[in-house]
Amino acid sequence: MSQAPAESDANREKKGAEETAALEQTAYRQALSSDLEQFLGRQREVLEDVSAESLPLLGAVHTLAQGGKRLRALLNYWGWRGAGGEALGAPAVRAGVALELFQSAALIHDDIIDRSDTRRGAPSVHRHFSNRHAEADWFLDGTHFGSSAAILAGDLCLSLSEEAFASVGERAAYNTRARSVFNRMRTEVMAGQYLDILEEVVGPGHEPERAVIRARNILRYKSAKYSIEHPLVIGGALAGAGDDLLTAYSAFALPLGEAFQLRDDVLGVFGDPEVTGKPAGDDLREGKRTVLIAYALSTGSGAVRKEITDKLGQPDLDDAAVQSLRAAIEDSGALATTEALIAEHTEQAFNTLAALAVDEQTRSALGSLAHAAVTRTA
Amino acid sequence: MSQAPAESDANREKKGAEETAALEQTAYRQALSSDLEQFLGRQREVLEDVSAESLPLLGAVHTLAQGGKRLRALLNYWGWRGAGGEALGAPAVRAGVALELFQSAALIHDDIIDRSDTRRGAPSVHRHFSNRHAEADWFLDGTHFGSSAAILAGDLCLSLSEEAFASVGERAAYNTRARSVFNRMRTEVMAGQYLDILEEVVGPGHEPERAVIRARNILRYKSAKYSIEHPLVIGGALAGAGDDLLTAYSAFALPLGEAFQLRDDVLGVFGDPEVTGKPAGDDLREGKRTVLIAYALSTGSGAVRKEITDKLGQPDLDDAAVQSLRAAIEDSGALATTEALIAEHTEQAFNTLAALAVDEQTRSALGSLAHAAVTRTA
Repeated sequence: MSQAPAESDANREKKGAEETAALEQTAYRQALSSDLEQFLGRQREVLEDVSAESLPLLGAVHTLAQGGKRLRALLNYWGWRGAGGEALGAPAVRAGVALELFQSAALIHDDIIDRSDTRRGAPSVHRHFSNRHAEADWFLDGTHFGSSAAILAGDLCLSLSEEAFASVGERAAYNTRARSVFNRMRTEVMAGQYLDILEEVVGPGHEPERAVIRARNILRYKSAKYSIEHPLVIGGALAGAGDDLLTAYSAFALPLGEAFQLRDDVLGVFGDPEVTGKPAGDDLREGKRTVLIAYALSTGSGAVRKEITDKLGQPDLDDAAVQSLRAAIEDSGALATTEALIAEHTEQAFNTLAALAVDEQTRSALGSLAHAAVTRTA
Repeated sequence: MSQAPAESDANREKKGAEETAALEQTAYRQALSSDLEQFLGRQREVLEDVSAESLPLLGAVHTLAQGGKRLRALLNYWGWRGAGGEALGAPAVRAGVALELFQSAALIHDDIIDRSDTRRGAPSVHRHFSNRHAEADWFLDGTHFGSSAAILAGDLCLSLSEEAFASVGERAAYNTRARSVFNRMRTEVMAGQYLDILEEVVGPGHEPERAVIRARNILRYKSAKYSIEHPLVIGGALAGAGDDLLTAYSAFALPLGEAFQLRDDVLGVFGDPEVTGKPAGDDLREGKRTVLIAYALSTGSGAVRKEITDKLGQPDLDDAAVQSLRAAIEDSGALATTEALIAEHTEQAFNTLAALAVDEQTRSALGSLAHAAVTRTA
């Protein structure tokens, strides 16, 4: 009677690990939010000493940092836990704050660069400040004021991200593995983002075959490593993980990161504005030379190539033009090829996860995050 | 014969201290440049791993960081030396690299915000990238590409500044005084810069009397503390200075910083383009609400107020309009009032310096830097 069949035991154990992981993750999210509030609260005092009129700069950072799915903080947390870090350990909470602030800083500047007026269904930071200018009927150029204020808000957020990371203390100090990955992450993201905007202006002149190779490299550095691999590895390194585990983390996280960003590319063209909180076809207006677009150019007919070349990057594309481009990309087979690549990378990631030397709770949590990252609709 | 008169002894000693300080400062400058090259050289490897095409991003940072008067690094150095730090000590060299990179990051983003096309007589970073776009005849909007690339170059430079500071090691670690000042410095500068651009768009509606108070507060945070006080205090803190010495450093450096920035305000309107490397009257076109302008509004006639209100912040001001504004500001007495304020702050700084508990060599070096900061023409 006391011996249930083995399969049922395994299932029960798996379900138990899922439930424990979910409960712990909820507790971590709360600890993260609370630490973020405290951290920004102390910054508020510094700004108040300067002048209460400077508070909107921090306010913009605060509003943005409160949102989001916390993907990077959670990966960092399970990287920490999988390497034996204690539940809800302070270094993993504070490093999560640092990673979320880094992501907010990147978004603030990205939205200026991509001319995105909305972020998570609300005005982007530069629009928020140009709106303030318009509402208060201030002097001079409100658009320029908006992007200038957003440049400064992003700079503040970037500095605060690092201040938070340094305040993790000894585990993140100079010459530690965690600090070295954090440093590399920042440089790689900025280099990757530069390649991304460079490709927008240079790419139209490239051979389509070359475009795929380039787009995949950009995707790796501007997003896959930074959004998935580095947070997981930083968490592990903070907990003192050895080289073997960190290498295994990367082997799981890099393909997952590539699938994650490919999903983002698909959403940037085919996403539902009601769900993404961004206008339909935003990436098309911005002229993003994504892997999806590179495939369409590489495998599409002459007519498809011409349509993409003519329309991509036109800020005033109307809905009909977006619809037509979507159809062209789909007909070229690029959507199917991209989905196949997402599936391939996802499978690779899950295979690695199955063999990862971590406890079942961490495996379960990483599995849920991985699933959400590649099937998301926003 | 061996006993020369006392005065002559004092003079000889003073001259000796000056010469020793000058020699040591030259050696520090060389160590600083060499450390900067090594530091950026290692970054180059990270960018090469991403793609050789991302190197221009670092190249822009490198070119800018090679120039400049090294004011912040030198203040940091003598703050270190005055507190007993060893000659050419590695922490003071690396902290100097961090401060110079922070200044470069601020300049890159400032030039976008201020729409400045030149910096030190060469194209500003955003112009450098829009020029590359034009020369290579790339696609889409070259101006937008230029500012986007400069946003990323500034972000990279800001991250590298912090990476350099963290790499100072234990003396700059979490919970040290040096790190705490470094953190506060960054937040204050960004808050001060935000107030600066806010004043440009809000200021025209202010009462002139209020404008002076606001302009002096902005000047303190966006420049005086960050350019003069904080570097000196960081250097002292790195060498383990006690509260008394750090407070005395501030008492010397804050008025000096105010005089320094007031001199900058005067140069921004009356400077010689051949010497400053910037177009005549650049601050007038940008609409900077400096202390100089605030005085002119506060003490000028109705006609002067009207001329300033009408013309300040017009990007297309021609040379005749600049000349006319210059004359109006001078006639209002604002130039004389500002020069008197510079003299008053300078005297206060030098009086504090005379009583500062540092060796004669440091006193001499700080005196030279102070003199250069307030009498500069570029």
